[in-house]
Amino acid sequence: MHALVRELYPICRSITGDGVRQTLARLQQDIPLQVHEVPSGTPAFDWTVPREWNIRDAYVKDSRGQRVIDFRRHNLHVVSYSVPVRARMSLAELRPHLHSLPDQPDLIPYRTSYYRESWGFCLPHRQLEGMAEDDYEVCIDTTLEPGHLTYGECVLPGSESSEVLLSCHTCHPSLCNDNLSGIAVATFLARHLAGVPHRHTYRFVFIPGTIGSITWLSRNEEQAKAIRHGLVLTCLGDSGNFTYKRSRRGDAPIDAAVRHVLRHSRGEHALLDFSPYGYDERQYCSPGFDLPVGCLMRSHYGQFPQYHTSADDPGFVTPGQLADSLATVLSVVQVLEHDLAYVNLNPKCEPQLGKRGLYGAMGGTSIRDLEMAMLWVLNQSDGRHGLLDIAERAGLPFERIHEAARLLLQHDLLAPAAAAPSRAQH
Amino acid sequence: MHALVRELYPICRSITGDGVRQTLARLQQDIPLQVHEVPSGTPAFDWTVPREWNIRDAYVKDSRGQRVIDFRRHNLHVVSYSVPVRARMSLAELRPHLHSLPDQPDLIPYRTSYYRESWGFCLPHRQLEGMAEDDYEVCIDTTLEPGHLTYGECVLPGSESSEVLLSCHTCHPSLCNDNLSGIAVATFLARHLAGVPHRHTYRFVFIPGTIGSITWLSRNEEQAKAIRHGLVLTCLGDSGNFTYKRSRRGDAPIDAAVRHVLRHSRGEHALLDFSPYGYDERQYCSPGFDLPVGCLMRSHYGQFPQYHTSADDPGFVTPGQLADSLATVLSVVQVLEHDLAYVNLNPKCEPQLGKRGLYGAMGGTSIRDLEMAMLWVLNQSDGRHGLLDIAERAGLPFERIHEAARLLLQHDLLAPAAAAPSRAQH
Amino acid sequence: MHALVRELYPICRSITGDGVRQTLARLQQDIPLQVHEVPSGTPAFDWTVPREWNIRDAYVKDSRGQRVIDFRRHNLHVVSYSVPVRARMSLAELRPHLHSLPDQPDLIPYRTSYYRESWGFCLPHRQLEGMAEDDYEVCIDTTLEPGHLTYGECVLPGSESSEVLLSCHTCHPSLCNDNLSGIAVATFLARHLAGVPHRHTYRFVFIPGTIGSITWLSRNEEQAKAIRHGLVLTCLGDSGNFTYKRSRRGDAPIDAAVRHVLRHSRGEHALLDFSPYGYDERQYCSPGFDLPVGCLMRSHYGQFPQYHTSADDPGFVTPGQLADSLATVLSVVQVLEHDLAYVNLNPKCEPQLGKRGLYGAMGGTSIRDLEMAMLWVLNQSDGRHGLLDIAERAGLPFERIHEAARLLLQHDLLAPAAAAPSRAQH
Repeated sequence: MHALVRELYPICRSITGDGVRQTLARLQQDIPLQVHEVPSGTPAFDWTVPREWNIRDAYVKDSRGQRVIDFRRHNLHVVSYSVPVRARMSLAELRPHLHSLPDQPDLIPYRTSYYRESWGFCLPHRQLEGMAEDDYEVCIDTTLEPGHLTYGECVLPGSESSEVLLSCHTCHPSLCNDNLSGIAVATFLARHLAGVPHRHTYRFVFIPGTIGSITWLSRNEEQAKAIRHGLVLTCLGDSGNFTYKRSRRGDAPIDAAVRHVLRHSRGEHALLDFSPYGYDERQYCSPGFDLPVGCLMRSHYGQFPQYHTSADDPGFVTPGQLADSLATVLSVVQVLEHDLAYVNLNPKCEPQLGKRGLYGAMGGTSIRDLEMAMLWVLNQSDGRHGLLDIAERAGLPFERIHEAARLLLQHDLLAPAAAAPSRAQH
Repeated sequence: MHALVRELYPICRSITGDGVRQTLARLQQDIPLQVHEVPSGTPAFDWTVPREWNIRDAYVKDSRGQRVIDFRRHNLHVVSYSVPVRARMSLAELRPHLHSLPDQPDLIPYRTSYYRESWGFCLPHRQLEGMAEDDYEVCIDTTLEPGHLTYGECVLPGSESSEVLLSCHTCHPSLCNDNLSGIAVATFLARHLAGVPHRHTYRFVFIPGTIGSITWLSRNEEQAKAIRHGLVLTCLGDSGNFTYKRSRRGDAPIDAAVRHVLRHSRGEHALLDFSPYGYDERQYCSPGFDLPVGCLMRSHYGQFPQYHTSADDPGFVTPGQLADSLATVLSVVQVLEHDLAYVNLNPKCEPQLGKRGLYGAMGGTSIRDLEMAMLWVLNQSDGRHGLLDIAERAGLPFERIHEAARLLLQHDLLAPAAAAPSRAQH
Repeated sequence: MHALVRELYPICRSITGDGVRQTLARLQQDIPLQVHEVPSGTPAFDWTVPREWNIRDAYVKDSRGQRVIDFRRHNLHVVSYSVPVRARMSLAELRPHLHSLPDQPDLIPYRTSYYRESWGFCLPHRQLEGMAEDDYEVCIDTTLEPGHLTYGECVLPGSESSEVLLSCHTCHPSLCNDNLSGIAVATFLARHLAGVPHRHTYRFVFIPGTIGSITWLSRNEEQAKAIRHGLVLTCLGDSGNFTYKRSRRGDAPIDAAVRHVLRHSRGEHALLDFSPYGYDERQYCSPGFDLPVGCLMRSHYGQFPQYHTSADDPGFVTPGQLADSLATVLSVVQVLEHDLAYVNLNPKCEPQLGKRGLYGAMGGTSIRDLEMAMLWVLNQSDGRHGLLDIAERAGLPFERIHEAARLLLQHDLLAPAAAAPSRAQH
C-alpha cells in the first residue's frame, strides 16, 4: 500500500481532470474498476458538474527570469482550479494571490477555488517574506473548459443484494494521509474481497469530494437504497489512534460494528457523534438519503498539523499503519458478513453440550472461553439478537461468538433465523 | 426591579387580605393586571377558600407598658393568620406562643398558621432569652372574617392559542428573595412582552401559595389545557447560581429549554428532578393536571440561611442578580417562541451554499460557526427535529441555530414543517 | 439456620441418591415439603434423568493395609458419580485418577463426573506429593443403577395465583456456603411465610443443580407460566457483601426489588448483569422460558478461595450472615408483596392533608419524611406507577412509601388501581 501511495503522490489531482484519470488508470491494474465520465453541465441535485480543469505549468518568475514559485517543484504551489493567467505585475499586485501559513512558515498550504473563478499560488511563509519588490512574470497555464467529471466504481457482487459502500475521495493532489491512504486501503480491500466469497455486495467508489458523492448519488438514487452499511475511508496512514465518526443515525449496525472492532483492538480510539461537516458522509447522511455511512480515520481531519499542507507527504504515512488500518476494516467487514441472527433449536433449558463433546466432562472446575461463548449464543438466540449483539452482551470478541455459532450449527443446535435481527441499541 | 422590591417590602402580605390587594394595585401601574376576588367558603377541589385575614396592630407589652415585641417594627413578628387576642399573661403562659431560631439568634423567623386557629409571635432568640418573668399585655388586633382571596392575572395574547404560564406567589410578607424577586421579574417580563409581538399567549398569575394555585386551577380547568409550557418564578434575586427543578414529566420542552439556556450561560447551575414538595409546581404538576411547569430559582428554597427569616431583606437581593434572572427567563422565552421544526427543501445532498453567498469561497480552510449552524439545520430539518433539538445536537447556542434557520428561510432552502416537532428525549 | 447447616453437613449428597433423600427428610421436619421421585431414563428436554448413584465406602489402601485416602473421613475424597472400582495398581496407574489443588495444597477439591463414566479421588496436594510408589488397593463401593432423581417442593398458596419461585440446589456434598446456606435460608423463609398471610404463592424448590431444574421445568411447563418473580439462593452464609445477578430480562420487577433493598441496606453490594453461566438461573432464563429469576449471593461463586474445596465448611458460614441474608430476602419479599399501583382519588391538586391530621400545622418549617412520602405517593399514583417505582423516584425506602400509602388508603385518599403497574425502567 505504501508503494501505491508513493506512486500516486506526484500526480496533480483535482475534482476533475487528467490527474484523476491517471490515478484511476493505475488502480485498474489492481482491481476491476469501472471509470465513469460525467459531462460538465450535468445537473446533480442543487449542483452542476463543473468545467474540467487541467494544468500544464505554472510559475512566478522574477525580473532575472528565475522561477521563484514553480509548479513543477510541487503541485500544491498552485491554487486548485486557478484560471489561466499570463501577466506581469508588481509584488503588491501579486500579493493578494499568494497564500501561506504564518504559523507553519516552512510548509506549503493546500488551497482550492472550485466554485469561484480565481487564481493563486501557495508557498512557504518564509519564502513569501523573502520576496522582494520586483517586476514579476506570472504564468498559470491551465484550461477550464467543458469536459467531464471522472470517478471510479468497483462492484464486487455478493450472494445477497445488500450493499456495503466504501467511499474515498480522489481529488486531493500531492497529499498522502488525505487521501492516498484511503485510496490505498480501499484498493487493497477490494483486491482481497475480489478473491473470496462474501454475502454482501461491496461497492467501492473513488470520487472527488463533495461534487463527486453528490454526482454519484444523483445518478444512483435507486441503487443507494440497497446500501445497508457504509464507510468513508480517509486519513488511514498516520500514526494516530483510530477515530470513528458515527453515521447520522448513530445506532446503525455499521456504528455498532466499528465500535465493537475498535473496543476489542489493542489501542485507544475515539468515537465521535455525526456532524454535518467533514467528508462525503455529509452527502450520504443528508436527510433525503440518511444512509448508514460512518467515517473511519486515524487522526481526525483538520486536527493534525500536517493536514492540508506539504508535510502530508509519503514520510507521514507508514506501511505499518496502512496495514493496521486495512486489518481493522477487514475485521469490520467480517462482522458485517457474519452478523446474523439464529434460533436455538433447544430453547427450553440448555442442550446437553457434554454428550456432544462440546463441554468439559469434569465438573467443579471453571469454564473455558469457547464454552462460555456457546452458552451465550444459545441463551440469546431467540431470533431477535444477532451475533454482534450477543458478542457485545457477552463482552467477548465477535470472532469467538462466531466460532461458537458455527460449532452449534454443525451440531444442529442452532438454525438461521428467518427474519433479520432487530438490533438492540447499545 | 430592585426599586419595586423595596417599595413592596414593607407591605404585610398573607394568603388573603389587604396586603395582597395593595401589592397587586402597585403592579397594575406597570402591567395590565386583572384582579380577581374569590369569596371565602368557595370550594376549590379538596380545599375551601379561607376567611380573609387582616391585621392592624400587634404587640407584647411588659408591665411598664413598653412594647417588647412590636408588629410595627417588623411584620414578621406576628405569626401569619393569628386569631385576635387581648389578654394579660405570665411569661410561662406566653412562652408556647413565641417562636425563635436558636441557631440564628439575631433573626426573626417567618411562621404561619393558616389552617389551624392559633396565634403567636416571632422574635430573635437572643431577645427571647432576655425576656424576664412579668405580667405581659398581649394584643393581636386582627380580623379573620368572611371576605375574599385576591389574585392577579395578566394575559398577553399571542398569535397562537398555546399558552405559557408564569406563576409567582404573593403571600409572603416582608421577605424579598422569597418572593418579591419573583414578583419583580414576572412584572418586568410582562411589561417587556406587552410591547413586542409573540407567538404564544403569556399568562402571568400572581397568587398566594398553595391555596392560590389550587383556587386558580379549580376556576380554570379548561383554560389550563392550553398551557404548553410553564415556570414558577421564585428566589431570583440572591447571589447564588441558578437552580432549575424540572416538571413532573421531566422531559417537557420547558425542561429542555431551560437546561439549554443554563448550559449556554456563563455560570454553574443545578438541574433537579421534580419532587412534590416546593412551590406551586406541586399543584400544577399534580397527576390530574400534570402540566409542563418547572420552577426556576437561583438559590434553592430552604437551602440558604436567610430563607424564611428577617435576613431575607432588600439587602439580600441585588439589582444585578434580578437583571440576570430576567435576561435568563427572556432567553428561555426566546427558545419557546422560536423552537419550530422545518423541512429542508433540498434534502438530497447539501444545497450549494456557496453560489448563494452563504459559504466561504476558498477551500481548504476551516469552517465558521454560522456555516456550521446552517449545515446542522439543513442536515436535521426533516420535519421531525425542532430548532432546540438541533441546537442541542450541534452543541451550539439556540440563537446561532435560529439565525441559521432565518438565513436559510430567506434563501428558500427551508420551509416550516406542517406538524409540530416530535421532540427527541435528551 | 447454622445448626441446620451443621446437621446437614456430613451427608454425602449428589445429584441423585440417598444423601438427597436424607436432606429433604430433615427439611420436612420444618416445612411442608413434598418429595418427588423421577425415574432414571425419564426424558427432560435434551437431557435424560441419569441413573441413581449411591456410595457406601471408598478408599485407597497402601501395601500395609493403611487407608491413605478414606471416604469415611471426608466425602469430598471421592469424585461424585465415580463408578465402582476394586483393583490393585501402582501409583503411576492410580495417578490420573487423583485430583488436587497445587495452589491450595492443604485443601481437598470438589470434583464430579456426572455424565461421563469415570472414577477418582480428591485429596490435598501436600498429601498427594507424599504418596510413595506402592502396590495400592483401590476400592470405590458405589452403585450406579436405575433409580430416581429426588427433589423437594414446598408450595405456600397466597391469595393470588401469581407465583414467586425460590430455588436452591441440594446436590453438593459437604460444602456449606455452596449450598447448605441457601437451603437453610430457603427453609427458614418458608417456615416464616407458612405462618403469615401473603398475596403471592411461594414455591420453594430444593433440587439438584442443572438436571434438577431441567427436570422440574420439563414437568412444570404450564405451572412455570405463573412465575412472576424468582430467586436462586446460594452462597448466603459467608462474610462477603451481597452480590445480585440480574435475570436475563435485566429489568424485571425482581431485579428492581433486589436492587432497591440492597441500595437501602447498610453495606456495599454488587449488581451484575445476567450471564448464562452460574446456577439454575441458567435454565430458568433459557430463551424458551425466560423467567424473571435472578440469583442472590453474598460472595460470588467461584470468586472466593474456599469455593468448591473442603474449606467451605461450617466455620466458613456464620449465624449472623445467615440471619442477615434471611432478613434481606424477607425485605425483597415485602416489596414483591406490596408493590401495587394505586390511584389518587383527588388527583387535581393536593388534597388538604392538614385537615385530616396528616400534615404539620405550623407553616414555614421543614417537612418530615412521612409527609414527603405521602406527597410522593399522591403525586405519582396515577395508576401507572407502583409503590416501588415511587420509592425509587422519591429516593425513600420502600417501607416508608408503603406506610404512606396505607395512611392514605385509611383516609380514602387512595384506591387500588384496577390494572397492574406498568413499570418504568430504571
